[in-house]
Order: sequence, then C-alpha cells, then structure tokens
Amino acid sequence: MPPPLIQPRTLKGFRDYLPAAMIPREQLIETARRVYRSYGFSPIDTPALEFAEILTGKVSGQDSSGGSVAGDEAERQMYRFEDHGGRQVGMRFDLTVPLARFAAQHAGELGTPFKRYHIATVWRGENTQRGRYREFMQCDFDTIGTRSVAADIETALVIHDLFVALGFESFTIRVNNRQVLNGLLEQLGLTDKSTPILRALDKLEKIGAAKVAAEMQAAAGATAEQADSVLQLAGLSGTNEEVLTQLEQLVAGSAQGGEGVGTLREVLDAARAAGVPDERLQLDPSIARGLDYYTGTIYETFLDQLTAIGSVCSGGRYDNLAALFTRQELPGIGASLGLDRLLAAMEELGMIEPTSTPAPVFIPYFDRDRLHDYLSLAGLVRSAGIGVELFPEPKRLGQQLKYADRRGFVVALIVGRDEFEAGTCQVKDLRRQSSEEVQLTDDGAALLDAVRRACAES
Amino acid sequence: MPPPLIQPRTLKGFRDYLPAAMIPREQLIETARRVYRSYGFSPIDTPALEFAEILTGKVSGQDSSGGSVAGDEAERQMYRFEDHGGRQVGMRFDLTVPLARFAAQHAGELGTPFKRYHIATVWRGENTQRGRYREFMQCDFDTIGTRSVAADIETALVIHDLFVALGFESFTIRVNNRQVLNGLLEQLGLTDKSTPILRALDKLEKIGAAKVAAEMQAAAGATAEQADSVLQLAGLSGTNEEVLTQLEQLVAGSAQGGEGVGTLREVLDAARAAGVPDERLQLDPSIARGLDYYTGTIYETFLDQLTAIGSVCSGGRYDNLAALFTRQELPGIGASLGLDRLLAAMEELGMIEPTSTPAPVFIPYFDRDRLHDYLSLAGLVRSAGIGVELFPEPKRLGQQLKYADRRGFVVALIVGRDEFEAGTCQVKDLRRQSSEEVQLTDDGAALLDAVRRACAES
Repeated sequence: MPPPLIQPRTLKGFRDYLPAAMIPREQLIETARRVYRSYGFSPIDTPALEFAEILTGKVSGQDSSGGSVAGDEAERQMYRFEDHGGRQVGMRFDLTVPLARFAAQHAGELGTPFKRYHIATVWRGENTQRGRYREFMQCDFDTIGTRSVAADIETALVIHDLFVALGFESFTIRVNNRQVLNGLLEQLGLTDKSTPILRALDKLEKIGAAKVAAEMQAAAGATAEQADSVLQLAGLSGTNEEVLTQLEQLVAGSAQGGEGVGTLREVLDAARAAGVPDERLQLDPSIARGLDYYTGTIYETFLDQLTAIGSVCSGGRYDNLAALFTRQELPGIGASLGLDRLLAAMEELGMIEPTSTPAPVFIPYFDRDRLHDYLSLAGLVRSAGIGVELFPEPKRLGQQLKYADRRGFVVALIVGRDEFEAGTCQVKDLRRQSSEEVQLTDDGAALLDAVRRACAES
Repeated sequence: MPPPLIQPRTLKGFRDYLPAAMIPREQLIETARRVYRSYGFSPIDTPALEFAEILTGKVSGQDSSGGSVAGDEAERQMYRFEDHGGRQVGMRFDLTVPLARFAAQHAGELGTPFKRYHIATVWRGENTQRGRYREFMQCDFDTIGTRSVAADIETALVIHDLFVALGFESFTIRVNNRQVLNGLLEQLGLTDKSTPILRALDKLEKIGAAKVAAEMQAAAGATAEQADSVLQLAGLSGTNEEVLTQLEQLVAGSAQGGEGVGTLREVLDAARAAGVPDERLQLDPSIARGLDYYTGTIYETFLDQLTAIGSVCSGGRYDNLAALFTRQELPGIGASLGLDRLLAAMEELGMIEPTSTPAPVFIPYFDRDRLHDYLSLAGLVRSAGIGVELFPEPKRLGQQLKYADRRGFVVALIVGRDEFEAGTCQVKDLRRQSSEEVQLTDDGAALLDAVRRACAES
C-alpha cells in the first residue's frame, strides 16, 4: 500500500501566485524598478530574518523608552522564534525598520545622500478576517541624509511618473505637511497631544468629522473648540493656491507652521514646473498619516475611479530614521507603493490582460519527425527577441491549439508536413482567429513581420 | 540621557546587499527571467512559510515511508516554529518541495504541460563555517507533465542561452542520463544499491576515484570489480560520438541502458542542430547528481575558467514530482541556477562593472535659484529613457563631483549660472575626465546625443 498522502495546502493568510496573477505582478514590480532607477535610486536587500530586538526596537529585559518605529501592533503580529543557535529572531514586518538598521550599520560606507529602493516580502500574523494577507510585498523608495526640499519634490515626481508608467490616467497625489498641522497645534496649546490628535485626524475619511472630534476629546483631552479648529484646517478646500492662502492665515502665528506652508508652496510650484498637472497633485490639509515619525511633507495617492480602496502610495519626510541604532541623525523622505492593493485595483479597472504565458508565440509540434525544424523555427523567432513556446509532444493539432488558447498565446505558427515541403508557415492570430501564409526564408523576414504585426494588433 | 542604542547588526549567516552587490544581482535575475520567458516559462510564487509537514514530507507522529525529496539534512536545517495559531510551520529550504505541493494543489487548473520559473529566497540553518549563507536565492525552471525528449532538449537550450545572455563565452554543459548508469548497475546486479553507489560517484571530482571505489564498497557493499566497472563507465572520454559508442557497448544488455543512450543521442543531435557548439554540451558519464529523484537526463554546468567552484546550473529529469501529495504522476525536467555562486564567479572574472548607481547620468545642483531648471533638465534626459540623478543640495561643485565619482556615474551634466545664461551645458565624461559643451535646445537633441555617446563609450 502506498503511504498516505499529505494534503497539499497553504497556510491561512498565505497564497500561491499562479502565472495569471504573477505575470502582472512581475510587470508592476518591473515598472516600479524602472521608475525608481530612472531617478538614481539604487536597489538594496536585507535579510528576511533579523534579531528580534532590532525589529521590535526593544532589547529584552530592558525598558527602552525609544519605542518601536512600527508601533506595538506590528510587533504583536511579528513572526518570532528561537533559531538553531538559541537567538531570538523575527521575520521583518516592514522595510522601514530594516532600512533604519541598514543605514546605521553602513552609514560610513554608503555616504549621503543615499537613495535606495527596496522591493521585498514582509510578514505579519494579521487577523485574516479583515481580508489581509500574512505575507505581502512592499515597494519602498527613500532618500536619506538630506533635509533639502529638492528631495520632497522628487518624491512627488517619482510617484507621478510611477502611476503614469503603470498606465493610470486619473489619479491624485494628495500632499500635506506635518509642520502645518503641528503649527496649528502649537497655536492651540496642543503640542504635547499631537500624536493622539493626528491619529484621530488620520481616520477622517473613514469615520467622519463627528467621530474624529469625539476621539480628539476622549483620547487626546482636547476641548470641543480645539477639535473644531483642527477639523476646520483639515476641511479647507479650493485650488492649491486658495488652500495655501488660507493655511497661511490659520498658522500665521507659528514659525514651524509658516515653514510648512512655505515647503508646500515650493513642492507645488516645482512639480507644476516639472510638468505635473495641478489636478494630479493636490494640497489636502486633512491627510495626517498615522505614523509618529513623519515630521514634514506627507503624501497619499488615490485612484480617482477607486478612491474607496484608500491610498495606494504613501509616505513622507522624517527627521531621524535610525535613532534606535545610531547617534547620527539621518533625516530623509520616502514612500511605499501598495503593490497588492494596486494589483487588485488594476484588475478591477480592466487594466490587466488575462494571460498565463509571458511568451506571445506558440508553435504546435505535430509532425513527429521534424523536431529539429521546429526547434530551428523557435530559435529564429526567439533570436528576434520574441518569446516562443514549442509544445513538447507531437499531439493532435486541435488539442495543442486548445492548450494555446487556455494559456493566452497571441500567435500560433503552424507548420506541418505540407508547409515544411512548400517552405511556408501559417501565422495564426489566435485572438482574431485569422490566418496568413508566409514564406519561410533563412532570415525569416516575412515570418517575423507577420508575427510582429499580429502581436502589435492584439 | 538618551536611551541606550541597539547594536545594528545582521544575524550570523545573513547579509545585507548594498547597491554595488545588488545591482549585478538584479541584472542577473533579470537576464534569467528574460531567457526563461523567451521559452514560455511562466513565473509563479509560493509562500515563504508552509506547514512543516509539507516541507519535511512527514506528518508528525506518522512514519511516512515516502521520505523527503530534499533529504534529512535540509530538514534538520529548516527554520521551524509554531505560529500564532499553534501551527507547526517552516521556512522553505528549496523551491522543489513547494513546486511539488503547488503542482499537486493546482494540477487541475494549470493543466499540462506546465512550464514555470520561480526565483525566490530560501533559508537553511547551515553551518556557516563552510562559507555558506543561511539565506540565498534560487532560480529554478521546470517543465512538468511530459516525458517527451523535446523538454530534455529544451532544458539544454535554456541553459545555453542563459549563459550566453549572461556574457559567458567559455562554459560547458555536461550531460548524462541516469538510465545509462542504472542500466550498468542492472547488469552488475547492483540495482538495489543504486542510491549509495550514485552518491559515491557524485563525489568523483571532489575526492578522486580511489576514495569513490572505497565508498562504493563500504557504503553500498559493492565488490572491488563492481566499483571498478562503474568507474570505468564514469571515466569514458572522447568526443560525444565516441563516448556514445562506448556507452552503447557497455550497457548493451540492458533495455533501460539502451534507452538512456538513445535519449542522450537525441539530446546531443538536436542541440547541435539548434546551434549549440559541441564544446559547450559534452556527454560526461561521470556526473550522477546526488539527489535520489532524478531518473533520466541530468545536467551540470561549469565555467571553463573556474571549474573548481563546481556546477553553476544543474538539474535533470524526474518521473514523479509530487508523490507525497497526489496520486497523479507528474514527470518533468528542470534545472536550477546557482545565483550566488555565479555572481561570485562573475566578480572574480571581472565581468561586473563596479557601480553603486543604476542611473548613468548625474546632475550637480549648484546654482541655488535654478532648481526648476535642473528638474527640467533631469526630466528631459529621463524622458529619453536615460536614468539621471539630481543632487538634492546646492553644495560646492567639487563636493558633488566627488559624490558622483564614488557612486560610479558615467556622465555629469554641468550647468551653472553662466551656462544657463548662455543656454549651454557641459557634458562631462566622468571616466575619461573629458568634457564637451553642447547647446541646450528645447528638444535637447545635441545634449542627448552627447550623453548617449558618453554612455556607449564607457
């Protein structure tokens, strides 16, 4: 009797990527990489496993008042265990903490400014009932070691180029500046309450103004009037210029508030000069980003046709990335692309062509004795830079074409005994179900023309 | 007093990839992906974490006679722990076991033949004294669901194209067939000892013939004469045709031996017809591949200038990929690229250009008031598909050029107050330290020409 089978299954919250899902995912990653690189961001990678104390920001048995960058929730969700050498280790739950550790460890060698992108998997033991996965990919880019507004501007340009390159036409990058909010809080005497206030404000879109006001009073001890002032600022609307003018008045008494408005103006002006349309970069005083460590410009990006899914690319400026690991101050700015959310959106918007093959051309193999000729034909097409799959078995043509259809090939090159003898090839457009006959010459010029035409038309 | 710092460090056996290491790594992965895709292999991905029983092939408390594909060593080295839900989980230690689970789980949806590539990280708690890392990347491709020799041939072609695409000129793919070895063992009455015999034979290059013969006798109970016969077969040399002829005689009495020789002949003939030079695909009866599950064609790939580092791309045919998970027989063939070993070799051979930036062009920012103009200039170059980094701070030119040198940029576009007023730009070749002045027109034609020239020359 054969041994009992082990049930093939994935863990709850984890998933396989089949080709139809993986092909657009690779395309998206490739596009992000190309855009990041075009601005001089360099790739880095860090280990999936780190010392747990590094990820949590807490040395065990020691009450570090530094706190964790990522907050307690991420820490609770961290996959954590003891390795073969008795070390407490954890799987990274974001790319920010590893970047902080990396920057502190290699600061001398890297120098500043240091621009990096990091596209990698992270893990969180989240509650899957919220539709979240426990393994997902992050696509971050950051410029470290400069306070210059040029880096703030560039961050907006990268986000803009990225979404254009991905094929989006209607999207809005919302920009704000923490200094503006902090300036207002300073004027209201709420500086020491800024964290709970900003956390509450961050929920504005989700829970509405009334509940945010209530939370500001309950969690931050603000008065109703103070909550109202914050919500008034968050509620400003109009053109970027109109909102800037109103903001200037609201924070007129605060130096940092004024500085924040000045930075916003510089970012907006420069982005306009660099060709970003006004409707794609909008000043929105309501965005706060929940994370404590942002201190200046902050960004969120929304797809106009699917605003409900939330921001698909967010980030901002921070004063000190790696305070837990080094006394060297490392200011910077960066953003993170929500890969999985974006892929879901692209699918919903019909931007993803359903295919299970990265090669457009299919060659059925049905004259058993001609394997060498089929291989040569495939090689000819491939050497022109066009991907081609040769079916491995000499089965019936109908069966092979069914396979080609299911996989999503664009073109089939049909050559049987008659065609080989006549020196011809049927170029079949599998989507239009049309066909043309071309001569098979040594350089394959006519064939390659026909293939390129069919691929371009599809 | 500030809180004590946490020492920024990586775990033993783990490492960070800085840009200078990551850029060639990404290039290598990109090339592998392009070649795999050009043959119609589709990308897939599977979770880093799986149920431990799936990775080990053993349901706990049950003595499965199925055994683990990967062997006990990999299992001992597996990172294993209990997750938040009390499940026994492990981190994948290769991509073969996840492929087996994946194929069994999705067989219906995928259909056959199924051609996939999988480029992903795996983890093993190895002894780092052997110079091994505990986290590394594998680059596998497989064709599942066919016994056709066309898939064996294609595997050789993919390996060949891959090394050509990577820029190697002198490499040798060594091919053999397990059926030939098994045919000989059958004739010698050693069929039931084939696993320890092949394990011993696999060490031939490392430990030499005498020690292999000793191990065959000690571990497999072979006689000195039997060991000698196996070593005689393994020691055959000559042209592919000469070795084929000798093999045919040695296994003349065995059906499976004859079949193996026939398959080898088909593979060698087809590869030659497809343009693979004879010296790059050599029949080598001594290669055995230690893994139990290979049953037919096997491949190893050596860099002629660095044979000592061992095979950099290996694989072979198997009869049944997923016997632990499904009763459906899934034969196939595949190979795995040794990414890290190959990168080390490319570095040793001087094939990797030292650079820390993926963008060739650098723009120093030294006229403080002209940020918008610098941004436009950068945008112009970028829109021609050329990567460009703008320095974020208006520092002294010398300081910025030092930064550019350190990073490895190819060209600097130098535009200060004088140049802006004259409508010109200095295109500086940073490697040759030569410089030319071009006119800055709206379409930037002269500028882009000069940049392209400098990039091409470098």
